[in-house]
Amino acid sequence: MKTYLDCIPCFFTQALRAGRIATNDEMLIKRMLDDIGLRLKDISLDCTPPEIGRTIYGRIREMTGQPDPYRAIKDRSTAKGLELYPELKKVIAQSEDPLLTAVRLAVAGNIIDFGVFESVDIDDTIQTVMKQKFAIGDYPLFRERIEAAQQILYIGDNAGETVFDRMLIEEIGKPVVYAVRAEPVINDATHDDAVAAGIDGVATIVSSGTDAPGAVLPTCSDEFIERLEQAELIISKGQGNYEGLSQTPYPIFFLLMAKCRIIASDIGVTQGDIILKAHNL
Amino acid sequence: MKTYLDCIPCFFTQALRAGRIATNDEMLIKRMLDDIGLRLKDISLDCTPPEIGRTIYGRIREMTGQPDPYRAIKDRSTAKGLELYPELKKVIAQSEDPLLTAVRLAVAGNIIDFGVFESVDIDDTIQTVMKQKFAIGDYPLFRERIEAAQQILYIGDNAGETVFDRMLIEEIGKPVVYAVRAEPVINDATHDDAVAAGIDGVATIVSSGTDAPGAVLPTCSDEFIERLEQAELIISKGQGNYEGLSQTPYPIFFLLMAKCRIIASDIGVTQGDIILKAHNL
Repeated sequence: MKTYLDCIPCFFTQALRAGRIATNDEMLIKRMLDDIGLRLKDISLDCTPPEIGRTIYGRIREMTGQPDPYRAIKDRSTAKGLELYPELKKVIAQSEDPLLTAVRLAVAGNIIDFGVFESVDIDDTIQTVMKQKFAIGDYPLFRERIEAAQQILYIGDNAGETVFDRMLIEEIGKPVVYAVRAEPVINDATHDDAVAAGIDGVATIVSSGTDAPGAVLPTCSDEFIERLEQAELIISKGQGNYEGLSQTPYPIFFLLMAKCRIIASDIGVTQGDIILKAHNL
Repeated sequence: MKTYLDCIPCFFTQALRAGRIATNDEMLIKRMLDDIGLRLKDISLDCTPPEIGRTIYGRIREMTGQPDPYRAIKDRSTAKGLELYPELKKVIAQSEDPLLTAVRLAVAGNIIDFGVFESVDIDDTIQTVMKQKFAIGDYPLFRERIEAAQQILYIGDNAGETVFDRMLIEEIGKPVVYAVRAEPVINDATHDDAVAAGIDGVATIVSSGTDAPGAVLPTCSDEFIERLEQAELIISKGQGNYEGLSQTPYPIFFLLMAKCRIIASDIGVTQGDIILKAHNL
Protein backbone atom coordinates (compact mmCIF):
# COMPACT_ATOMS: atom_id res chain seq x y z
CA MET A 1 0.00 0.00 0.00
CA LYS A 2 1.31 3.44 -0.86
CA THR A 3 1.38 6.23 1.71
CA TYR A 4 -1.62 8.55 1.66
CA LEU A 5 -1.49 12.20 2.67
CA ASP A 6 -3.67 11.24 5.65
CA CYS A 7 -0.78 9.10 6.93
CA ILE A 8 1.36 12.21 7.50
CA PRO A 9 -0.47 13.64 10.54
CA CYS A 10 -0.68 10.04 11.82
CA PHE A 11 3.13 9.68 11.64
CA PHE A 12 3.39 12.60 14.05
CA THR A 13 0.67 11.13 16.30
CA GLN A 14 2.54 7.82 16.38
CA ALA A 15 5.87 9.52 17.02
CA LEU A 16 4.35 11.49 19.90
CA ARG A 17 2.83 8.35 21.43
CA ALA A 18 6.07 6.37 21.06
CA GLY A 19 8.11 9.34 22.29
CA ARG A 20 6.02 9.54 25.46
CA ILE A 21 6.51 5.82 26.05
CA ALA A 22 10.28 6.19 25.59
CA THR A 23 10.85 9.35 27.65
CA ASN A 24 9.26 11.91 29.97
CA ASP A 25 11.38 14.71 28.50
CA GLU A 26 8.88 16.86 26.57
CA MET A 27 11.60 18.99 24.97
CA LEU A 28 13.33 15.86 23.69
CA ILE A 29 10.01 14.71 22.20
CA LYS A 30 9.63 18.14 20.57
CA ARG A 31 13.09 17.75 19.03
CA MET A 32 12.09 14.28 17.75
CA LEU A 33 8.97 15.72 16.12
CA ASP A 34 11.09 18.55 14.66
CA ASP A 35 13.49 15.94 13.29
CA ILE A 36 10.63 14.08 11.60
CA GLY A 37 9.35 17.40 10.26
CA LEU A 38 12.72 18.06 8.61
CA ARG A 39 12.70 14.60 7.01
CA LEU A 40 9.15 14.89 5.69
CA LYS A 41 10.23 16.48 2.39
CA ASP A 42 12.40 13.42 1.65
CA ILE A 43 9.53 11.01 2.31
CA SER A 44 7.88 9.88 -0.89
CA LEU A 45 4.21 8.90 -0.97
CA ASP A 46 5.34 5.98 -3.13
CA CYS A 47 6.89 4.33 -0.06
CA THR A 48 4.73 2.09 2.08
CA PRO A 49 3.74 3.54 5.48
CA PRO A 50 5.78 1.02 7.53
CA GLU A 51 8.86 2.02 5.49
CA ILE A 52 8.37 5.55 6.81
CA GLY A 53 7.48 4.16 10.24
CA ARG A 54 10.85 2.42 10.22
CA THR A 55 12.63 5.77 9.89
CA ILE A 56 10.47 7.38 12.57
CA TYR A 57 10.77 4.64 15.17
CA GLY A 58 14.49 4.34 14.36
CA ARG A 59 14.98 8.03 15.10
CA ILE A 60 13.03 7.68 18.36
CA ARG A 61 15.31 4.83 19.43
CA GLU A 62 18.42 6.82 18.49
CA MET A 63 17.31 10.10 20.05
CA THR A 64 16.06 8.61 23.33
CA GLY A 65 18.77 5.97 23.61
CA GLN A 66 15.98 3.44 24.30
CA PRO A 67 16.50 0.39 22.04
CA ASP A 68 13.11 -1.15 22.94
CA PRO A 69 10.71 1.39 24.49
CA TYR A 70 7.72 -0.98 24.23
CA ARG A 71 9.49 -3.80 26.14
CA ALA A 72 7.23 -3.64 29.22
CA ILE A 73 4.08 -3.25 27.11
CA LYS A 74 5.05 -6.26 24.99
CA ASP A 75 5.73 -8.36 28.09
CA ARG A 76 2.36 -7.43 29.55
CA SER A 77 0.62 -8.28 26.25
CA THR A 78 2.28 -11.69 26.07
CA ALA A 79 1.49 -12.42 29.72
CA LYS A 80 -2.15 -11.50 29.13
CA GLY A 81 -2.26 -13.74 26.06
CA LEU A 82 -0.79 -16.67 27.98
CA GLU A 83 -3.25 -16.10 30.82
CA LEU A 84 -6.13 -16.42 28.33
CA TYR A 85 -4.59 -19.38 26.48
CA PRO A 86 -6.03 -22.35 28.47
CA GLU A 87 -9.58 -21.01 28.38
CA LEU A 88 -9.40 -20.09 24.69
CA LYS A 89 -8.03 -23.54 23.80
CA LYS A 90 -11.22 -24.97 25.34
CA VAL A 91 -13.37 -22.52 23.35
CA ILE A 92 -11.63 -23.70 20.15
CA ALA A 93 -11.92 -27.40 21.02
CA GLN A 94 -15.61 -27.16 21.87
CA SER A 95 -16.56 -25.08 18.82
CA GLU A 96 -18.33 -26.40 15.75
CA ASP A 97 -15.43 -25.43 13.45
CA PRO A 98 -12.21 -25.23 15.49
CA LEU A 99 -10.13 -23.88 12.58
CA LEU A 100 -12.59 -21.03 11.99
CA THR A 101 -12.69 -20.27 15.71
CA ALA A 102 -8.89 -20.17 15.79
CA VAL A 103 -8.91 -17.81 12.77
CA ARG A 104 -11.35 -15.53 14.57
CA LEU A 105 -9.21 -15.56 17.72
CA ALA A 106 -6.14 -14.76 15.62
CA VAL A 107 -7.98 -11.64 14.42
CA ALA A 108 -8.99 -10.80 17.98
CA GLY A 109 -5.32 -11.09 18.91
CA ASN A 110 -4.53 -8.55 16.21
CA ILE A 111 -6.49 -5.99 18.21
CA ILE A 112 -3.97 -6.18 21.05
CA ASP A 113 -2.01 -3.42 19.36
CA PHE A 114 -0.81 -0.77 21.77
CA GLY A 115 0.69 1.08 18.79
CA VAL A 116 -2.79 2.01 17.63
CA PHE A 117 -5.06 1.98 20.66
CA GLU A 118 -4.22 3.48 24.02
CA SER A 119 -6.07 0.70 25.84
CA VAL A 120 -8.29 -2.21 24.97
CA ASP A 121 -10.58 -4.48 26.79
CA ILE A 122 -9.28 -7.77 25.51
CA ASP A 123 -12.10 -9.97 26.80
CA ASP A 124 -14.79 -7.77 25.24
CA THR A 125 -12.85 -7.71 21.97
CA ILE A 126 -12.73 -11.50 21.86
CA GLN A 127 -16.48 -11.75 22.44
CA THR A 128 -17.12 -9.20 19.67
CA VAL A 129 -14.80 -10.75 17.11
CA MET A 130 -16.20 -14.24 17.75
CA LYS A 131 -19.57 -13.00 16.47
CA GLN A 132 -18.47 -10.32 13.97
CA LYS A 133 -19.11 -10.95 10.28
CA PHE A 134 -16.01 -10.89 8.04
CA ALA A 135 -16.17 -7.94 5.61
CA ILE A 136 -14.00 -10.05 3.32
CA GLY A 137 -14.34 -13.69 4.33
CA ASP A 138 -12.35 -16.08 2.19
CA TYR A 139 -12.55 -18.82 4.81
CA PRO A 140 -13.73 -21.68 2.52
CA LEU A 141 -10.72 -21.08 0.26
CA PHE A 142 -8.48 -20.66 3.30
CA ARG A 143 -9.54 -24.05 4.70
CA GLU A 144 -9.05 -25.69 1.31
CA ARG A 145 -5.56 -24.22 0.78
CA ILE A 146 -4.47 -24.94 4.34
CA GLU A 147 -5.53 -28.58 3.93
CA ALA A 148 -3.60 -28.87 0.66
CA ALA A 149 -0.45 -27.08 1.85
CA GLN A 150 2.76 -28.88 2.82
CA GLN A 151 4.21 -25.89 4.66
CA ILE A 152 2.99 -22.42 5.57
CA LEU A 153 4.89 -19.16 6.04
CA TYR A 154 3.16 -17.21 8.80
CA ILE A 155 4.20 -13.55 9.19
CA GLY A 156 3.58 -12.37 12.75
CA ASP A 157 2.68 -8.89 13.89
CA ASN A 158 2.50 -7.80 17.54
CA ALA A 159 3.70 -9.31 20.79
CA GLY A 160 0.74 -10.82 22.67
CA GLU A 161 -1.00 -11.48 19.35
CA THR A 162 1.69 -14.16 19.05
CA VAL A 163 -0.16 -16.31 21.61
CA PHE A 164 -3.26 -16.19 19.40
CA ASP A 165 -1.11 -17.01 16.35
CA ARG A 166 0.18 -20.02 18.25
CA MET A 167 -3.39 -21.28 18.76
CA LEU A 168 -4.10 -20.92 15.03
CA ILE A 169 -0.85 -22.71 14.15
CA GLU A 170 -1.84 -25.53 16.52
CA GLU A 171 -5.18 -25.89 14.71
CA ILE A 172 -3.54 -25.77 11.29
CA GLY A 173 -1.44 -28.76 12.29
CA LYS A 174 1.04 -28.39 9.39
CA PRO A 175 4.69 -27.37 9.42
CA VAL A 176 4.82 -23.60 9.87
CA VAL A 177 7.66 -21.10 9.56
CA TYR A 178 6.87 -18.08 11.73
CA ALA A 179 8.53 -14.80 10.71
CA VAL A 180 9.20 -11.99 13.19
CA ARG A 181 10.86 -8.56 13.01
CA ALA A 182 14.65 -8.54 13.24
CA GLU A 183 14.73 -5.64 15.71
CA PRO A 184 12.27 -4.13 18.19
CA VAL A 185 9.89 -1.63 16.56
CA ILE A 186 6.74 -0.43 18.36
CA ASN A 187 5.16 -3.51 20.00
CA ASP A 188 5.93 -5.82 17.09
CA ALA A 189 7.03 -9.33 17.94
CA THR A 190 10.74 -10.16 17.71
CA HIS A 191 12.31 -13.60 18.20
CA ASP A 192 12.22 -13.28 21.99
CA ASP A 193 8.54 -12.30 22.01
CA ALA A 194 7.66 -15.28 19.81
CA VAL A 195 9.56 -17.62 22.13
CA ALA A 196 7.86 -16.08 25.18
CA ALA A 197 4.50 -16.89 23.56
CA GLY A 198 5.50 -20.51 23.02
CA ILE A 199 5.72 -20.25 19.22
CA ASP A 200 9.03 -22.14 19.29
CA GLY A 201 7.12 -25.26 20.32
CA VAL A 202 4.81 -25.21 17.28
CA ALA A 203 6.77 -23.50 14.47
CA THR A 204 10.23 -22.64 13.22
CA ILE A 205 10.88 -19.00 14.10
CA VAL A 206 12.76 -16.97 11.48
CA SER A 207 13.59 -13.29 11.13
CA SER A 208 12.18 -11.22 8.28
CA GLY A 209 15.35 -9.18 8.55
CA THR A 210 13.48 -5.90 8.85
CA ASP A 211 13.22 -3.35 11.62
CA ALA A 212 10.17 -1.77 9.95
CA PRO A 213 6.73 -2.26 11.56
CA GLY A 214 5.64 -4.41 8.61
CA ALA A 215 7.10 -6.72 5.95
CA VAL A 216 8.57 -3.97 3.78
CA LEU A 217 10.46 -5.84 1.06
CA PRO A 218 13.33 -3.37 0.45
CA THR A 219 14.22 -3.68 4.15
CA CYS A 220 13.82 -7.47 4.48
CA SER A 221 16.76 -9.90 4.30
CA ASP A 222 17.56 -11.77 1.07
CA GLU A 223 16.93 -14.98 2.95
CA PHE A 224 13.41 -13.90 3.93
CA ILE A 225 12.60 -12.66 0.41
CA GLU A 226 13.66 -16.07 -0.88
CA ARG A 227 11.23 -17.64 1.59
CA LEU A 228 8.44 -15.39 0.30
CA GLU A 229 9.27 -16.29 -3.31
CA GLN A 230 9.28 -20.01 -2.60
CA ALA A 231 6.29 -20.02 -0.25
CA GLU A 232 3.39 -22.24 -1.18
CA LEU A 233 1.06 -20.35 1.15
CA ILE A 234 1.53 -17.26 3.32
CA ILE A 235 -0.56 -16.00 6.23
CA SER A 236 0.09 -12.30 6.84
CA LYS A 237 -1.12 -10.86 10.12
CA GLY A 238 -2.02 -7.24 10.79
CA GLN A 239 -1.96 -3.88 9.11
CA GLY A 240 1.80 -3.31 8.83
CA ASN A 241 2.32 -6.55 6.90
CA TYR A 242 -0.67 -5.76 4.69
CA GLU A 243 0.81 -2.35 3.91
CA GLY A 244 4.14 -3.95 3.01
CA LEU A 245 2.79 -6.89 1.00
CA SER A 246 -0.47 -5.73 -0.62
CA GLN A 247 1.20 -5.10 -3.98
CA THR A 248 3.46 -8.16 -4.08
CA PRO A 249 2.86 -11.26 -6.25
CA TYR A 250 2.99 -13.81 -3.40
CA PRO A 251 0.11 -16.19 -2.47
CA ILE A 252 -1.16 -14.62 0.75
CA PHE A 253 -4.11 -14.73 3.10
CA PHE A 254 -4.27 -11.34 4.84
CA LEU A 255 -5.76 -11.71 8.30
CA LEU A 256 -6.41 -8.48 10.18
CA MET A 257 -8.78 -5.96 11.62
CA ALA A 258 -8.80 -2.70 9.63
CA LYS A 259 -8.17 -0.43 12.60
CA CYS A 260 -7.07 2.51 10.44
CA ARG A 261 -9.56 4.36 8.23
CA ILE A 262 -7.07 4.72 5.40
CA ILE A 263 -6.10 1.04 5.32
CA ALA A 264 -9.80 0.11 5.47
CA SER A 265 -10.43 2.35 2.48
CA ASP A 266 -7.44 0.86 0.60
CA ILE A 267 -8.87 -2.64 1.17
CA GLY A 268 -12.39 -1.46 0.30
CA VAL A 269 -13.95 -2.08 3.71
CA THR A 270 -15.03 0.00 6.70
CA GLN A 271 -12.86 0.92 9.69
CA GLY A 272 -13.27 -1.77 12.37
CA ASP A 273 -14.03 -4.54 9.86
CA ILE A 274 -12.34 -7.93 10.19
CA ILE A 275 -10.81 -9.44 7.08
CA LEU A 276 -9.57 -12.79 5.82
CA LYS A 277 -8.58 -11.84 2.28
CA ALA A 278 -7.10 -14.13 -0.37
CA HIS A 279 -4.39 -12.41 -2.45
CA ASN A 280 -2.99 -14.08 -5.59
CA LEU A 281 -4.75 -17.29 -4.64
CA MET B 1 -2.86 28.83 26.24
CA LYS B 2 0.53 27.46 25.33
CA THR B 3 0.97 24.91 22.58
CA TYR B 4 1.04 21.29 23.72
CA LEU B 5 2.96 18.53 21.94
CA ASP B 6 -0.43 17.04 21.07
CA CYS B 7 -1.13 20.14 18.97
CA ILE B 8 1.66 19.22 16.53
CA PRO B 9 -0.02 16.24 14.81
CA CYS B 10 -3.21 18.32 14.80
CA PHE B 11 -1.47 21.15 12.90
CA PHE B 12 -0.74 18.65 10.12
CA THR B 13 -4.34 17.34 10.25
CA GLN B 14 -5.65 20.90 9.96
CA ALA B 15 -3.22 21.74 7.15
CA LEU B 16 -4.30 18.62 5.24
CA ARG B 17 -7.98 19.47 5.66
CA ALA B 18 -7.47 23.10 4.63
CA GLY B 19 -5.19 22.03 1.78
CA ARG B 20 -7.88 19.72 0.39
CA ILE B 21 -10.42 22.53 0.59
CA ALA B 22 -8.04 24.86 -1.26
CA THR B 23 -6.84 22.50 -4.01
CA ASN B 24 -7.23 19.05 -5.57
CA ASP B 25 -3.51 18.85 -6.30
CA GLU B 26 -2.25 16.16 -3.90
CA MET B 27 1.42 16.85 -4.69
CA LEU B 28 0.92 20.52 -3.88
CA ILE B 29 -0.64 19.51 -0.55
CA LYS B 30 2.35 17.23 0.10
CA ARG B 31 4.66 20.19 -0.55
CA MET B 32 2.59 22.29 1.88
CA LEU B 33 2.92 19.62 4.58
CA ASP B 34 6.66 19.39 3.84
CA ASP B 35 6.88 23.17 4.21
CA ILE B 36 5.18 23.00 7.62
CA GLY B 37 7.52 20.14 8.56
CA LEU B 38 10.54 22.32 7.81
CA ARG B 39 9.14 25.15 9.93
CA LEU B 40 8.32 22.93 12.91
CA LYS B 41 11.75 23.34 14.51
CA ASP B 42 11.23 27.11 14.63
CA ILE B 43 7.85 26.76 16.33
CA SER B 44 8.08 27.27 20.07
CA LEU B 45 5.65 25.56 22.42
CA ASP B 46 5.49 28.90 24.24
CA CYS B 47 3.45 30.33 21.34
CA THR B 48 -0.32 29.97 21.44
CA PRO B 49 -1.75 27.44 18.95
CA PRO B 50 -3.56 30.06 16.81
CA GLU B 51 -0.24 31.90 16.43
CA ILE B 52 1.13 28.76 14.79
CA GLY B 53 -2.17 28.29 12.92
CA ARG B 54 -1.63 31.75 11.47
CA THR B 55 1.66 30.64 9.91
CA ILE B 56 0.16 27.41 8.61
CA TYR B 57 -2.97 28.89 7.06
CA GLY B 58 -0.88 31.76 5.69
CA ARG B 59 1.40 29.29 3.90
CA ILE B 60 -1.64 27.44 2.52
CA ARG B 61 -3.00 30.70 1.10
CA GLU B 62 0.37 31.58 -0.41
CA MET B 63 1.15 28.15 -1.83
CA THR B 64 -2.32 27.55 -3.33
CA GLY B 65 -2.88 31.14 -4.43
CA GLN B 66 -6.31 30.92 -2.76
CA PRO B 67 -6.81 33.96 -0.52
CA ASP B 68 -10.02 32.60 1.05
CA PRO B 69 -10.39 28.83 0.56
CA TYR B 70 -13.31 28.57 3.02
CA ARG B 71 -15.36 31.26 1.22
CA ALA B 72 -18.08 28.86 0.02
CA ILE B 73 -18.22 27.03 3.36
CA LYS B 74 -18.53 30.33 5.24
CA ASP B 75 -21.32 31.49 2.93
CA ARG B 76 -23.21 28.22 3.44
CA SER B 77 -22.78 28.50 7.23
CA THR B 78 -24.10 32.06 7.29
CA ALA B 79 -27.02 31.13 5.03
CA LYS B 80 -27.89 28.21 7.31
CA GLY B 81 -27.73 30.49 10.35
CA LEU B 82 -30.01 33.06 8.73
CA GLU B 83 -32.44 30.31 7.73
CA LEU B 84 -32.70 29.25 11.39
CA TYR B 85 -32.84 32.82 12.71
CA PRO B 86 -36.65 33.46 12.69
CA GLU B 87 -37.46 30.19 14.42
CA LEU B 88 -34.70 30.58 17.01
CA LYS B 89 -35.81 34.13 17.80
CA LYS B 90 -39.21 32.64 18.74
CA VAL B 91 -37.51 30.00 20.90
CA ILE B 92 -35.67 32.78 22.75
CA ALA B 93 -38.75 34.98 23.13
CA GLN B 94 -40.89 32.15 24.48
CA SER B 95 -38.25 30.82 26.89
CA GLU B 96 -38.28 31.36 30.64
CA ASP B 97 -34.93 33.17 30.59
CA PRO B 98 -34.35 34.66 27.13
CA LEU B 99 -30.79 35.81 27.93
CA LEU B 100 -29.78 32.31 29.05
CA THR B 101 -31.41 30.77 25.99
CA ALA B 102 -29.51 33.21 23.77
CA VAL B 103 -26.26 32.29 25.58
CA ARG B 104 -26.96 28.60 24.96
CA LEU B 105 -27.69 29.27 21.29
CA ALA B 106 -24.47 31.26 21.01
CA VAL B 107 -22.62 28.15 22.22
CA ALA B 108 -24.58 25.99 19.77
CA GLY B 109 -23.48 28.39 17.05
CA ASN B 110 -19.88 27.80 18.10
CA ILE B 111 -20.26 24.20 16.97
CA ILE B 112 -20.70 25.30 13.38
CA ASP B 113 -16.96 25.05 12.94
CA PHE B 114 -15.93 23.34 9.74
CA GLY B 115 -12.31 23.81 10.78
CA VAL B 116 -12.77 21.13 13.43
CA PHE B 117 -15.60 18.88 12.31
CA GLU B 118 -16.09 17.53 8.80
CA SER B 119 -19.86 17.83 9.09
CA VAL B 120 -22.40 18.64 11.75
CA ASP B 121 -26.07 18.25 12.18
CA ILE B 122 -26.92 21.75 13.26
CA ASP B 123 -30.49 21.10 14.36
CA ASP B 124 -29.48 18.17 16.57
CA THR B 125 -26.67 20.24 18.04
CA ILE B 126 -29.07 23.02 18.99
CA GLN B 127 -31.40 20.54 20.71
CA THR B 128 -28.48 19.03 22.63
CA VAL B 129 -26.93 22.32 23.73
CA MET B 130 -30.30 23.68 24.88
CA LYS B 131 -30.43 20.88 27.47
CA GLN B 132 -26.71 20.38 28.18
CA LYS B 133 -25.37 21.33 31.59
CA PHE B 134 -22.54 23.90 31.59
CA ALA B 135 -19.30 22.32 32.88
CA ILE B 136 -18.35 25.82 33.99
CA GLY B 137 -21.50 27.91 34.28
CA ASP B 138 -20.90 31.45 35.44
CA TYR B 139 -24.28 32.60 34.15
CA PRO B 140 -25.47 34.39 37.35
CA LEU B 141 -22.32 36.54 37.29
CA PHE B 142 -22.64 36.95 33.51
CA ARG B 143 -26.20 38.29 33.84
CA GLU B 144 -25.14 40.63 36.65
CA ARG B 145 -22.14 42.02 34.76
CA ILE B 146 -24.07 42.39 31.51
CA GLU B 147 -26.79 44.35 33.32
CA ALA B 148 -24.19 46.65 34.88
CA ALA B 149 -22.12 47.19 31.74
CA GLN B 150 -22.25 50.33 29.63
CA GLN B 151 -20.59 48.73 26.61
CA ILE B 152 -19.40 45.24 25.72
CA LEU B 153 -16.55 44.09 23.49
CA TYR B 154 -17.66 40.87 21.78
CA ILE B 155 -14.93 38.88 19.98
CA GLY B 156 -16.47 36.74 17.24
CA ASP B 157 -15.24 33.42 15.98
CA ASN B 158 -16.66 31.60 12.94
CA ALA B 159 -18.88 32.65 10.05
CA GLY B 160 -22.38 31.29 10.62
CA GLU B 161 -21.85 31.43 14.37
CA THR B 162 -22.12 35.17 13.76
CA VAL B 163 -25.91 34.82 13.31
CA PHE B 164 -26.11 33.23 16.77
CA ASP B 165 -23.89 36.00 18.18
CA ARG B 166 -26.32 38.52 16.69
CA MET B 167 -29.19 36.90 18.62
CA LEU B 168 -27.23 37.12 21.88
CA ILE B 169 -26.30 40.74 21.17
CA GLU B 170 -29.99 41.49 20.56
CA GLU B 171 -30.86 39.98 23.96
CA ILE B 172 -28.05 41.85 25.72
CA GLY B 173 -29.58 45.11 24.49
CA LYS B 174 -26.47 47.19 25.28
CA PRO B 175 -23.98 48.92 22.94
CA VAL B 176 -21.69 46.21 21.57
CA VAL B 177 -18.46 46.41 19.61
CA TYR B 178 -18.05 43.21 17.58
CA ALA B 179 -14.48 42.24 16.66
CA VAL B 180 -13.68 40.10 13.62
CA ARG B 181 -10.48 38.80 11.98
CA ALA B 182 -8.72 41.26 9.68
CA GLU B 183 -8.12 38.65 6.96
CA PRO B 184 -9.74 35.33 6.02
CA VAL B 185 -8.35 32.40 8.02
CA ILE B 186 -10.13 29.01 8.07
CA ASN B 187 -13.85 29.72 8.42
CA ASP B 188 -13.39 32.59 10.87
CA ALA B 189 -15.65 35.59 10.44
CA THR B 190 -14.25 38.67 8.75
CA HIS B 191 -16.01 42.04 8.34
CA ASP B 192 -17.96 40.79 5.31
CA ASP B 193 -19.15 37.67 7.12
CA ALA B 194 -20.34 39.72 10.08
CA VAL B 195 -22.24 42.05 7.78
CA ALA B 196 -23.77 39.08 5.93
CA ALA B 197 -25.06 37.82 9.31
CA GLY B 198 -26.66 41.19 10.06
CA ILE B 199 -24.27 42.11 12.88
CA ASP B 200 -23.91 45.60 11.43
CA GLY B 201 -27.51 46.30 12.45
CA VAL B 202 -26.91 45.49 16.14
CA ALA B 203 -23.23 46.29 16.83
CA THR B 204 -20.25 48.28 15.66
CA ILE B 205 -18.00 45.91 13.69
CA VAL B 206 -14.25 46.38 14.20
CA SER B 207 -11.21 44.45 13.10
CA SER B 208 -8.93 42.77 15.63
CA GLY B 209 -6.16 43.34 13.13
CA THR B 210 -5.09 39.71 13.13
CA ASP B 211 -5.06 37.04 10.47
CA ALA B 212 -4.59 34.32 13.12
CA PRO B 213 -7.53 32.01 13.91
CA GLY B 214 -7.84 33.54 17.38
CA ALA B 215 -7.16 36.80 19.22
CA VAL B 216 -3.38 36.37 19.43
CA LEU B 217 -2.17 39.63 20.98
CA PRO B 218 1.23 39.95 19.22
CA THR B 219 -0.60 39.82 15.89
CA CYS B 220 -3.49 42.17 16.78
CA SER B 221 -3.55 45.85 15.88
CA ASP B 222 -2.59 48.50 18.45
CA GLU B 223 -6.10 49.90 18.10
CA PHE B 224 -7.65 46.55 19.05
CA ILE B 225 -5.27 46.01 21.97
CA GLU B 226 -6.28 49.44 23.23
CA ARG B 227 -9.92 48.33 23.03
CA LEU B 228 -9.08 45.22 25.07
CA GLU B 229 -7.25 47.30 27.68
CA GLN B 230 -10.11 49.75 28.04
CA ALA B 231 -12.92 47.20 27.85
CA GLU B 232 -15.30 47.07 30.77
CA LEU B 233 -16.49 43.59 29.77
CA ILE B 234 -15.44 41.20 27.03
CA ILE B 235 -17.26 38.18 25.60
CA SER B 236 -14.83 35.86 23.84
CA LYS B 237 -16.32 33.20 21.59
CA GLY B 238 -14.72 29.91 20.67
CA GLN B 239 -11.51 27.98 21.13
CA GLY B 240 -9.13 30.15 19.09
CA ASN B 241 -9.95 33.26 21.11
CA TYR B 242 -9.66 31.27 24.36
CA GLU B 243 -6.22 30.05 23.29
CA GLY B 244 -5.13 33.61 22.51
CA LEU B 245 -6.63 35.29 25.59
CA SER B 246 -6.56 32.71 28.41
CA GLN B 247 -3.43 34.21 29.98
CA THR B 248 -4.28 37.90 29.54
CA PRO B 249 -5.42 40.23 32.35
CA TYR B 250 -8.65 41.40 30.67
CA PRO B 251 -12.18 40.95 32.14
CA ILE B 252 -13.58 38.19 29.93
CA PHE B 253 -16.43 35.71 29.76
CA PHE B 254 -15.23 32.80 27.65
CA LEU B 255 -18.16 31.20 25.84
CA LEU B 256 -17.38 28.01 23.92
CA MET B 257 -17.70 24.32 23.49
CA ALA B 258 -14.43 22.49 24.26
CA LYS B 259 -14.27 20.57 21.00
CA CYS B 260 -10.58 19.78 21.36
CA ARG B 261 -9.35 17.36 24.05
CA ILE B 262 -6.28 19.46 24.79
CA ILE B 263 -8.19 22.72 25.23
CA ALA B 264 -10.73 20.89 27.42
CA SER B 265 -7.87 19.64 29.58
CA ASP B 266 -6.34 23.14 29.74
CA ILE B 267 -9.69 24.52 30.97
CA GLY B 268 -10.15 21.58 33.34
CA VAL B 269 -13.26 20.13 31.68
CA THR B 270 -14.07 17.20 29.40
CA GLN B 271 -14.07 17.25 25.60
CA GLY B 272 -17.56 18.19 24.39
CA ASP B 273 -18.38 20.27 27.47
CA ILE B 274 -19.96 23.71 27.12
CA ILE B 275 -18.47 26.55 29.07
CA LEU B 276 -19.36 30.05 30.22
CA LYS B 277 -16.27 30.94 32.21
CA ALA B 278 -15.56 34.19 34.02
CA HIS B 279 -11.92 35.29 33.74
CA ASN B 280 -10.56 38.20 35.83
CA LEU B 281 -14.10 39.05 36.85
